[in-house]
Amino acid sequence: MTTPGTNFIGINVSGTQARAALVDRDGAVINTKSGQFAPKELIPQLAAMVEELAPRGSIAAIGVAIPGLVNRQTDRVIAPRAVPTTMFDDLHGELMRATGVRVELENDANAAAYGEYKVGAGRGARNMFYMMIGNGIGGAIVLDGKLWTGASGFAGEVGHITIDTEGLECICGNRGCLETVASAPSIVRRARERLNRDSTSSLSRLALNKSFTADDVAHQAKEGDDFAHMMIERTGKYIGTGVASVINLLNIELVVLGGGVMDAGSLILNPIIQEVKRRAFQPCFEATEIVAAKLGLDGAPIGAALLARDATTE
Amino acid sequence: MTTPGTNFIGINVSGTQARAALVDRDGAVINTKSGQFAPKELIPQLAAMVEELAPRGSIAAIGVAIPGLVNRQTDRVIAPRAVPTTMFDDLHGELMRATGVRVELENDANAAAYGEYKVGAGRGARNMFYMMIGNGIGGAIVLDGKLWTGASGFAGEVGHITIDTEGLECICGNRGCLETVASAPSIVRRARERLNRDSTSSLSRLALNKSFTADDVAHQAKEGDDFAHMMIERTGKYIGTGVASVINLLNIELVVLGGGVMDAGSLILNPIIQEVKRRAFQPCFEATEIVAAKLGLDGAPIGAALLARDATTE
Repeated sequence: MTTPGTNFIGINVSGTQARAALVDRDGAVINTKSGQFAPKELIPQLAAMVEELAPRGSIAAIGVAIPGLVNRQTDRVIAPRAVPTTMFDDLHGELMRATGVRVELENDANAAAYGEYKVGAGRGARNMFYMMIGNGIGGAIVLDGKLWTGASGFAGEVGHITIDTEGLECICGNRGCLETVASAPSIVRRARERLNRDSTSSLSRLALNKSFTADDVAHQAKEGDDFAHMMIERTGKYIGTGVASVINLLNIELVVLGGGVMDAGSLILNPIIQEVKRRAFQPCFEATEIVAAKLGLDGAPIGAALLARDATTE
Repeated sequence: MTTPGTNFIGINVSGTQARAALVDRDGAVINTKSGQFAPKELIPQLAAMVEELAPRGSIAAIGVAIPGLVNRQTDRVIAPRAVPTTMFDDLHGELMRATGVRVELENDANAAAYGEYKVGAGRGARNMFYMMIGNGIGGAIVLDGKLWTGASGFAGEVGHITIDTEGLECICGNRGCLETVASAPSIVRRARERLNRDSTSSLSRLALNKSFTADDVAHQAKEGDDFAHMMIERTGKYIGTGVASVINLLNIELVVLGGGVMDAGSLILNPIIQEVKRRAFQPCFEATEIVAAKLGLDGAPIGAALLARDATTE
């Protein structure tokens, strides 16, 4: 007979990357593991990661954070952004069968938010809004210590608030979503358009590099590249526009911003805060602290593990 | 010795109008009263309304809904939209002294939302977003049966979410707020601009009337005026853009829309719903019901009375 384990594993699945963290009951990280997977081999490869991190019987539950919406009634995944839906067809059931451990699915932004809230930048706050700027822009709301996931589990989709009624078409079908100008691919697209148009920006180090990422733009900005700096600053203004709407609506005390582009540090955080100050109601702005996430890539796996912990002790 | 009363009075103060309702503990309306007041005579005139509605000693508390933000710690009013701040300088203290009854101040959108939630269109829902389209656009959030007023009491300011980053300047200092195109004065401004520009719309009945209001536009639309109909439809699209952002963020099960322009009925409600469908995430749209408010002008006074009731029984 196996006694139930006392630790938890959280796994963040993103594109063809998976990152897992083994944590104790308090969210302290014991070990982490990252790897690529072939989409068709997702389940066996996740099961192998679990096996490598912890011997059978030593963990109580697994939390999996995925880039899609999770229907809590059916444990099915709806409309994932970065990967084909079919990949997650029955992730919940299959991973449970493959590992013999209870599995909880969670939206990646919700998981990262919960990780930051419990052991990261949100520690000690009562209410928090989290925004993750990645391939998409996700978000999550923590109210009175709990994730507010809404009527059917989909709350927090800040990437799809309209900031320009006649703006670019978004993958969600809407026009002018925040995501169309501030997500990582949008940063690259805007930078590319500008480099093609503007001869002076051929001075930019980015122009020498045919295929660059949003993280490269953030990195070059920190290295002193003026053009990259300008792109990051503009991105900050867009993000700030979204954050201003969020705090006017929610009057929330803490906004935590995560994602690779936040590695630009104050080069992006300052324009975000300036734009929020310009656009938000003054009393809402004054009541809000806006900070960068602290846990980096471990936020989502830690949060997924802690959400699985909460689910097993409910 | 006076025994404490068992009924409550709610008063909505808007511009130079006040509307009061005497309600019982369950929010059933016993009597209402409306009147104009001179700004300098606000306190004595409100006290007179209270006196006329109910004899001294018969009411337990008075709730006053005002078009501004209320600081709950100090009971002071911040940044009212429609009236000079000084008018409300010490409304709380002065009205208490003038009536001898406990007074609670509340933002008008919060009060109207709570009225609709308890005895109007929101009855039976658990979570609700309320939007009031008037001289400004206010909003309020009810979560698990309670007003969610945020970190410092200012949540719900949906009129000031940005829907057009480079849009018109708003009285709040921001650009492109929902309020700049969908509030009652904005509807009039847009109609006027269009009538000046477009000769065919001189056929509109509105053009014959030099000074018309947003309510007139709604009324003419219902009477079959094509131009007014078009203006209302366009307004519905703007409002729908805001509602879509709200439900993407909150995944809330019920949205209740109030204000005079909603008198246009399905002529405005249908374009709102169509625009939300077009812009919101499908699962969020499907989880949400969007309806018109039911209580009309009585919503805010009833809600203010019920919030005062809750405050006295806390």
